[in-house]
Amino acid sequence: MELALREGEKGQGQTAPNPSVGAVVVRGGEILGKGYHPGAGLPHAEVHAIANARSQGHDLAGSEIFVTLEPCSTTGRTPPCTSAILQAGIKRVVWAADDPNPAHCGAARQILEAAGIEVATSVLVDEAEYLHRGFFKVQRTGLPWVIVKTAMSLDGRITRPSGEGQWLTGSEARADVQILRGEVDAILTSGETARRDNPRLDYRGERPGKKQPVRVVATEYPLAGLPAEAHLLQPNESGATRFVSGDLREIMASLAADGLQTVLVEAGGKLVGQLLDAGLVDEWVTYLAPLVAGGDVVAVGGEGCSVLDERPRLKNVSYQQFGADIRVRGLLRRD
Amino acid sequence: MELALREGEKGQGQTAPNPSVGAVVVRGGEILGKGYHPGAGLPHAEVHAIANARSQGHDLAGSEIFVTLEPCSTTGRTPPCTSAILQAGIKRVVWAADDPNPAHCGAARQILEAAGIEVATSVLVDEAEYLHRGFFKVQRTGLPWVIVKTAMSLDGRITRPSGEGQWLTGSEARADVQILRGEVDAILTSGETARRDNPRLDYRGERPGKKQPVRVVATEYPLAGLPAEAHLLQPNESGATRFVSGDLREIMASLAADGLQTVLVEAGGKLVGQLLDAGLVDEWVTYLAPLVAGGDVVAVGGEGCSVLDERPRLKNVSYQQFGADIRVRGLLRRD
Repeated sequence: MELALREGEKGQGQTAPNPSVGAVVVRGGEILGKGYHPGAGLPHAEVHAIANARSQGHDLAGSEIFVTLEPCSTTGRTPPCTSAILQAGIKRVVWAADDPNPAHCGAARQILEAAGIEVATSVLVDEAEYLHRGFFKVQRTGLPWVIVKTAMSLDGRITRPSGEGQWLTGSEARADVQILRGEVDAILTSGETARRDNPRLDYRGERPGKKQPVRVVATEYPLAGLPAEAHLLQPNESGATRFVSGDLREIMASLAADGLQTVLVEAGGKLVGQLLDAGLVDEWVTYLAPLVAGGDVVAVGGEGCSVLDERPRLKNVSYQQFGADIRVRGLLRRD
Repeated sequence: MELALREGEKGQGQTAPNPSVGAVVVRGGEILGKGYHPGAGLPHAEVHAIANARSQGHDLAGSEIFVTLEPCSTTGRTPPCTSAILQAGIKRVVWAADDPNPAHCGAARQILEAAGIEVATSVLVDEAEYLHRGFFKVQRTGLPWVIVKTAMSLDGRITRPSGEGQWLTGSEARADVQILRGEVDAILTSGETARRDNPRLDYRGERPGKKQPVRVVATEYPLAGLPAEAHLLQPNESGATRFVSGDLREIMASLAADGLQTVLVEAGGKLVGQLLDAGLVDEWVTYLAPLVAGGDVVAVGGEGCSVLDERPRLKNVSYQQFGADIRVRGLLRRD
């Protein structure tokens, strides 16, 4: 299942509105084939894994398939994966997470068991829910999974002074930001940050064929008041930048409705604070640069909470050093 | 020399106004004895190391001694260490850092070489300067070495809300703060923090016989306006809390003149910001708790610098995890 999760990661940021499922076909400890879902409208991970095994001359009779998510059992833009599994002669199916859609959940088990196939589930379910966190969040709440990324000094001051054209963090941390951008469907910023920093908000990492994330600017002004030559006014592979306004929860719901499951926020303290206050943030990534900035511009605004217990804490925190900087990453919880 | 440095660390926070020197006596790869300076008025590290070797029955003829600092050559409250070295029959002396006092620097080499003893210096000099950083700072500038310790949320907000009696960081990080308190001669806070948090500012760690640091409160009010039952108004082994006011640089100079070489600052953003603005901070220790606090109370105030290049950066940065928290520690520089 570990291997199926690694396969699924290859599709991250590519498959919306579908989940980035991974699958591995195994027999007696031997890996026969593996695959992942490369994008909506294309074959699912199970079909790719089966085809991959066959292309290497393997007969799949009596094999097992490990999948990160319950196989689909309905015909969408592609035929149901349960049929592909039955046709391949696979005798055992193991998946990590159940389908979050109550109308589908459990259907695969019924179909497969009725055909005499053994089913096992709930293997590495937390890891699979994390891999598919955008898909799960949308299915369960109608809102996208929101990741806030900030870069700040040790005392929580914002990235870089206006117009300095300098970065607070080093090149290693900035390369990691590109990996993060490669994992999401959309990047949201504020009109203020768009005007001040003239960001590109595109993916310039090394993943071949990676789709560009959709660029979104929350602003009350037409085109955020950007000059015609601003990077965000030049269309790229993701199309034109979307300029949105109004209630942040409604903005997020409309992004989810458009099939954007994961949204990375790269903005100043004001927008980040408003998202926090509205309880819309799911995941937190901070790059800390080892300097003490002082001054007025804080990286995270908002009302905050007066009671310590109610402040959002991170869980599953990881710390990783990038050059002289450190990344703190975790899931936000209010419990 | 590594071992001599470890010996010297045992005296940290104990020896002011003297440096916490460590020494090791060696012959042919065998460690004959080791020692450190345990406090002003008591024998120096070299004398302890020689006595330690003798107590184990070793004859020191032909041995070498490694010392973290150039041995003293003048009679103070104790006889000069150069004499002790000569009397012991040691044939080679190696020290890390030279005496920062120009009147003494080089004298030991002259005396020892005149007696036919081989001298080597500048071994692990950076490490030794760090070990003796309080002593060196006072000798060179008349000011103490100032360490700022803050505990903050990931977004740079202050420790804990007023009156909540709760800690932001976990028990592992708080135990590490006790180690830090054990290494310094004095702890400085602000009247505001003293009133709000009723801190003890004492050492409650595990080092046996550790001296209590002197407690200092920077305040314009008599006794900082503290109620009679405040912890800081109860005398402890370090004596009564000192209440000081006026220019921060003059306050620091007077602490150094009183033999306090290292000062730990545990205070709110206002005092920390003023110290930063005045360029009085040498070392920075931040404990980051993985939560996002938001709100108004920042952990570091001050004017800050508008130009990124002029902001104080940390060098020799280390990151260490304590439970769910992380400690960032480094030296402050403006270059």
